[in-house]
Amino acid sequence: MTRRRTQVCVIGGGPSGLLLSHRLHRAGIDTIVIERRTKAHVLSRIRAGVLEAGLVAQLREIGCAGRLDAEGQVHGGCVLSVDSEAFRVDFAGLTGQGVVVYGQTEVTRDLFAAKERAGETILFGVEDVALHDPDGAAPFVTFRQDGIAHRVDCDWIAGCDGFHGPSRQAIPRDRRREVEKVYPFGWLGILSETPPVHDELIYASSDRGFALCSMRSAHLSRYYVQVPTGTDPASWSDERFWDELRARIPPERAEALVTGPAIEKSVAPLRSFVCETMRWGRLLLLGDAAHIVPPTGAKGLNTAASDVHYAFEALHGHYGGSQSEADHYAARALARVWKAERFSWWMTTLLHRFPGRSDFDRRMQEAEIALLRDDDSYRRAMARNYVGLPYS
Amino acid sequence: MTRRRTQVCVIGGGPSGLLLSHRLHRAGIDTIVIERRTKAHVLSRIRAGVLEAGLVAQLREIGCAGRLDAEGQVHGGCVLSVDSEAFRVDFAGLTGQGVVVYGQTEVTRDLFAAKERAGETILFGVEDVALHDPDGAAPFVTFRQDGIAHRVDCDWIAGCDGFHGPSRQAIPRDRRREVEKVYPFGWLGILSETPPVHDELIYASSDRGFALCSMRSAHLSRYYVQVPTGTDPASWSDERFWDELRARIPPERAEALVTGPAIEKSVAPLRSFVCETMRWGRLLLLGDAAHIVPPTGAKGLNTAASDVHYAFEALHGHYGGSQSEADHYAARALARVWKAERFSWWMTTLLHRFPGRSDFDRRMQEAEIALLRDDDSYRRAMARNYVGLPYS
Repeated sequence: MTRRRTQVCVIGGGPSGLLLSHRLHRAGIDTIVIERRTKAHVLSRIRAGVLEAGLVAQLREIGCAGRLDAEGQVHGGCVLSVDSEAFRVDFAGLTGQGVVVYGQTEVTRDLFAAKERAGETILFGVEDVALHDPDGAAPFVTFRQDGIAHRVDCDWIAGCDGFHGPSRQAIPRDRRREVEKVYPFGWLGILSETPPVHDELIYASSDRGFALCSMRSAHLSRYYVQVPTGTDPASWSDERFWDELRARIPPERAEALVTGPAIEKSVAPLRSFVCETMRWGRLLLLGDAAHIVPPTGAKGLNTAASDVHYAFEALHGHYGGSQSEADHYAARALARVWKAERFSWWMTTLLHRFPGRSDFDRRMQEAEIALLRDDDSYRRAMARNYVGLPYS
Repeated sequence: MTRRRTQVCVIGGGPSGLLLSHRLHRAGIDTIVIERRTKAHVLSRIRAGVLEAGLVAQLREIGCAGRLDAEGQVHGGCVLSVDSEAFRVDFAGLTGQGVVVYGQTEVTRDLFAAKERAGETILFGVEDVALHDPDGAAPFVTFRQDGIAHRVDCDWIAGCDGFHGPSRQAIPRDRRREVEKVYPFGWLGILSETPPVHDELIYASSDRGFALCSMRSAHLSRYYVQVPTGTDPASWSDERFWDELRARIPPERAEALVTGPAIEKSVAPLRSFVCETMRWGRLLLLGDAAHIVPPTGAKGLNTAASDVHYAFEALHGHYGGSQSEADHYAARALARVWKAERFSWWMTTLLHRFPGRSDFDRRMQEAEIALLRDDDSYRRAMARNYVGLPYS
C-alpha cells in the first residue's frame, strides 16, 4: 500500500471538488483530489449551466473565467408563460445582476485545465474509496487505483462525491439528519443541434404540465417537458416530444420552434434532499453529497458553489489559526442551502402540474403568477433568488 | 304587499353594503338597503379591524373617516416571531404605507351614522329575503318586515349578505363556479380589557402552533391561538389560554403579557372560498357573499372594500352610460380577490402547524421566514400585500 499525506483530501473531481481544491492550492493549502471516473467520463456528463454571480466571481478570482467571459451568454432575464400568456422577468433591471449560461461541463473542463497548469494532483479511476476516522484527530482515505492500494492521510476530508458517493455514508446513519421530498414527476430532456427558440430561458406552466426551453449555445438547444415518474425516454419519439413541447409553450414560440433530431434524451427525477449534518468532525460535505434540488431554477451547481465558498473560508480560517470558521461551516452553508431548497421547491410547485391538484391549488398557482406579472416587488424577490442570494 | 322602486337594492347592512350604498347615494344613485338583523345586533358583531389604505381612502372620500382619523392607530409594521426569535417587518419603510387598526364594528357604526344623516333608507329585521329574476331585465327583491310583505323593483341587486345569505344562492348551483379549501384547524380568540402586549401585531409561529397578538385599542387586547378543528371554547379556561399563548410567543413578550378575564371567547374555523361567478345578470356579489379568507393577514374586510370599489365603478359607469364597466366587474374584482386569497393562504401556510406536516414542509416554513428576516426584497413583497395591493 502506498501512503502519502495531504492537508485536504478531496473526494470527487466534479466542479465543486475541483473549485475547492484549486482555491485551496492558490491559498497555499495542499490537496489531493480523487475521482472514481475517468476524466473523459466526467467531461461527458451533461448538466445544466446557469451560473450565479457568486460562482462566476469565484472562477474569476482564480483566473479560471477567461473562456466563460468570452463564450458564456449573459442572461438579463427569463420568460414565464402560462398557457398562451407570457411575460419577462427582468433580472438586470430588478437586481442589477444577471446569470451566465455556460455549461457545467465547460466549467469542469476549465477547472481541469487550471489544475493541470498548476501541477496539482488529481487521481482518476479510483475504486473502493473509504473514509476512515472522519470524526477523529487523524482521518485518512483509502482506495485502489490500477489494482494498487493507496492511503492518503490528511487533516480534512472534503466530500464532493455526489449523492451516491461514500462521503455522506461515512457519517453513521443514526447521526445524520436527513430531510427529503420526492416529487411525483420527472423531466424528460432532449439536447438538439438547433437554434434555441428564444434567446432567454422560457419557463412554461401549462395545463398539460411544465416545460422549459433552455440552451447551451446559439446552436445547441436543451428542452424539457414534465412527465410522470417512471417514464421511459425510449417511449418518446422525437416527434412526440416536439409536439408536446409545442403544446405547452406560447403559440408564437411554438410556431418559431426549430426542431431536429435529439442527440440526447433522458428522464431525470425531481427530488429535494438535504443532509443537515454537513460537517462530521474533520469531514465537510459539499454539493450533491449533502443536498439535491429539483432542477427548476437551476440551483444545483450554484448551491454546490456556495458550499465551496463556505468550505474554503472554513479551511483557510483553520490554517490561518481561526478554528471558529470551521466550526461554523455547517450552519453557514446550511442557511443558504435551505433558501436555495426553498426557491427550487417554490418554482417547482408554482409551475408544475401535480397529480390530484385541487382547483384551489391551481388558483393559487395562477394568482402567484399573476402577482409576479403585476407586482414589481414580488418579481424582484423572485429575481434576487434566481440570480443568487449573496454569500453572507 | 307594498311595492317600491330603487335603482340598486343592497342586500345586507354590514360594512360593504353600507359603504357601497352611501357611495352610490353621494353619486346620485338611489339605493335601498335591507338587513336581516337589528342595528344593535349588527353593531354587536366582533370582527377584526386592520384597514388597508384603499378602504381608508374610500371612507375619507365620503367624509366618513373623522373618528377613524382621530382614534385609529396607524401601524407602520408588524412583528413576526418563530419560537424565541422575532423580527419586525417595517411596512412604512418598505412601502411608504401603513395600515390602520380600527375595529370593523366602528367602521359600521360610522357608516350607519353617515347614512342616517343623509336620510338614506335602511330596513332592518327583514325576513324571507328572496331575489327574483336577477339575470332578467326587471329584477326585484321580496321580503317581510314586521309581518308585512314588501317588494322592491330595481335595476341592480348588490349581494352584500355574507357567506350564508340568499344572494349567492340565487345563482343556479350549476352555473356558480366555486372553489374552496378548508384548513384542519381554527383560531380560539379572546377579547380582554388589558393593555396589548406590544404596540404592533405579533404573528407568532411556534412548534405548538400559531398565535396572534392583536388589539382594538390601548386598553382592549385581542389574542388568538391555533386550535384543532372542532375545539369547544368552553373547554379552554382563561388560565389555559394565557399559558398557551405565553408558550407560543417570544419569552420577553410572554413575561410582559398582562392577563385578565376574557370578555369574549370563541373559535373561528379557517376557510378559503371563492365564488368566481361574482356577477349574474343584474346581480353583483360583494364581500363574504362571494369569498372567504382565513383571517391570517386580515384581508376579509379589505377585500370586501375592494369589491365595493369595483362595484361602485361598475354601477356609476352604468348610470353614466358606460356599460363596459359593469361587464368588467367580475373580472376586475376577482383578479384582486385571488391575490388576497393567495396572500391569506400563504400567511396561513407559512405560520401554522399543519397536522401531518413533514420535516421538509417545516424546513420550507423556516426557510421562508429566514428569507423574510434576511432579504428586504422578499420583506417588501410581503409588506406590499399586507398594506394592500393597489386597486387596478
